[in-house]
Amino acid sequence: MALELPSFAEILAARERIRPLALVTPLIEHPALNARTGGRILLKAENLQRVGAFKFRGAYNKIAQIDRQQFPGGVVACSSGNHAQGVAAAATLCGMASVIVMPADSPAIKIKRTRGFGAEVILYDRVKEDRDAIARRICAERGAAFVHPFDDRDVIAGQGTAGLELMEQAKGMGAVLDAVLVGVSGGGLASGVSIAVKELSPKTEVYCVEPAGFDDFARSLTAGSRQRNAQMAGSICDALMSPTPGEITFALAQRNFAGGFAVTDDEVREAVRFAFEELKMVVEPGGAVSLAAILAGKIPVKGRTVAALITGGNVDPAMFASIIQAGAKAA
Amino acid sequence: MALELPSFAEILAARERIRPLALVTPLIEHPALNARTGGRILLKAENLQRVGAFKFRGAYNKIAQIDRQQFPGGVVACSSGNHAQGVAAAATLCGMASVIVMPADSPAIKIKRTRGFGAEVILYDRVKEDRDAIARRICAERGAAFVHPFDDRDVIAGQGTAGLELMEQAKGMGAVLDAVLVGVSGGGLASGVSIAVKELSPKTEVYCVEPAGFDDFARSLTAGSRQRNAQMAGSICDALMSPTPGEITFALAQRNFAGGFAVTDDEVREAVRFAFEELKMVVEPGGAVSLAAILAGKIPVKGRTVAALITGGNVDPAMFASIIQAGAKAA
Repeated sequence: MALELPSFAEILAARERIRPLALVTPLIEHPALNARTGGRILLKAENLQRVGAFKFRGAYNKIAQIDRQQFPGGVVACSSGNHAQGVAAAATLCGMASVIVMPADSPAIKIKRTRGFGAEVILYDRVKEDRDAIARRICAERGAAFVHPFDDRDVIAGQGTAGLELMEQAKGMGAVLDAVLVGVSGGGLASGVSIAVKELSPKTEVYCVEPAGFDDFARSLTAGSRQRNAQMAGSICDALMSPTPGEITFALAQRNFAGGFAVTDDEVREAVRFAFEELKMVVEPGGAVSLAAILAGKIPVKGRTVAALITGGNVDPAMFASIIQAGAKAA
Repeated sequence: MALELPSFAEILAARERIRPLALVTPLIEHPALNARTGGRILLKAENLQRVGAFKFRGAYNKIAQIDRQQFPGGVVACSSGNHAQGVAAAATLCGMASVIVMPADSPAIKIKRTRGFGAEVILYDRVKEDRDAIARRICAERGAAFVHPFDDRDVIAGQGTAGLELMEQAKGMGAVLDAVLVGVSGGGLASGVSIAVKELSPKTEVYCVEPAGFDDFARSLTAGSRQRNAQMAGSICDALMSPTPGEITFALAQRNFAGGFAVTDDEVREAVRFAFEELKMVVEPGGAVSLAAILAGKIPVKGRTVAALITGGNVDPAMFASIIQAGAKAA
């Protein structure tokens, strides 16, 4: 059976759907970054998005279309991160209940924030229990719909609105983009953004960026089939550790991506520090990988115009404090 | 002799002058802040400005108009803070030399950043030496122009461009502002912003916000004459400790300000933490006073539309780390 891929028209429709509630985040061109790289760099600041990450876009586009008669119990998602907060906030704004299935050892702040957005949080034992089985059971018991974090055409179309905005904003700034860099985990954002980029500017190259050791997308693109990461933990980028690309997202990646880059934890830390010191923005490690790829010279940007998505800012205060102070000591 | 006050036309001219180099910073409306306050709150994010603070606007507007024949030695300023960085960056962009007179005990990072923007830094002993005398001597020796941090009509007109942008952006968002809050030290920004606000929306009230114990502007407005602060140190807001309002800035304040508020160090810390946790922005304590006034309920905002300027983000990493982690412990 051929996969049905989301279209550019679906991104346009998603934009109308999310317009009253999602923020049009700024596309920031900062002299300090241009001076440092010798290129013209535009940053789409999705850390400034509602709930602190792009995830609200896809979650709301999905949940706003769910049939309430068919799913009177609302929605269910599995996540301890930005997807949890995006689904919780979107469901509440749609007047629907939400259940988030979260590891019992999740940081207290993430549980608190997810509840704060209106979700019921159900904790499970990461070692002894099966998250997906729990989610399936709740869906069945309550008549609730499952919201996949990335491999869903409505979620992908929603995330793609960030790319649509980016392209329109870049045009308004007189920028013709040579490349767009997007951090990737399951690939919902990167694949959605790639649809908008390729529709509006076919020559612009789209690259995905992953943590070193979690470069399943880059290896899958090279191999021509979906590869898995060897490890499930061990990166500072807690938001970017999906084990393998999604089916839909990988099909879009094969069509639209020019390739992928991997960045080390130290390169990510430097990007978080640069964003603090120069851009005055709070970026979480997983949200900084595309900026890290630029700062670390993974892609030539001198004399070129390159956009990167800053995807989230939900970082633990202790980790953020440690990263920015390490910079001060080194200075 | 009557003071010559800067006009709205001078702000319009300043905007054309700074347009290629200053950033049009975003006016941010964040659901988390609206939910917390019950009002519609718009934040003008001048922490995202070039050099990390609004100061670049006024410095560039001033320096771009300096006659190079008359002042072949460039410019001189006294500051260890954002004014230093603004003047250094603006002079370098104008192809002029700059000398910044800075206390010898300034944080190394500030000296480094100021040099990084192209200035020559001259250190003086805060106890034994007279900063102004040093600046006067350098001006005379080198044929350089002195750039006052606030009491200068070109500087004020430059800072006023932030208010012009704010009013235009608010209009574009369909917002009719009940009030605008601006942090104040010498008053260059607040008085410049007030010119634009009152020109474009006479009914919008302009309030200044100061650190508690450094409320010289509020007391001066009440007294009808310029008052001095009793102390010279002792606030977390190192950027907001001018001893008394400027002559020009106070004349504008008397004409345009509806009043002033004072915020405590703890209220400022809470605002810095809120900006980190919810807005994902890095704000320095002195840059957060107007947000602090809103969060602490100094002005009623429920059901009203209120704008506040976030004026800078140049904060020492150790101080920032301490503020955001105190929040985590309390949570």
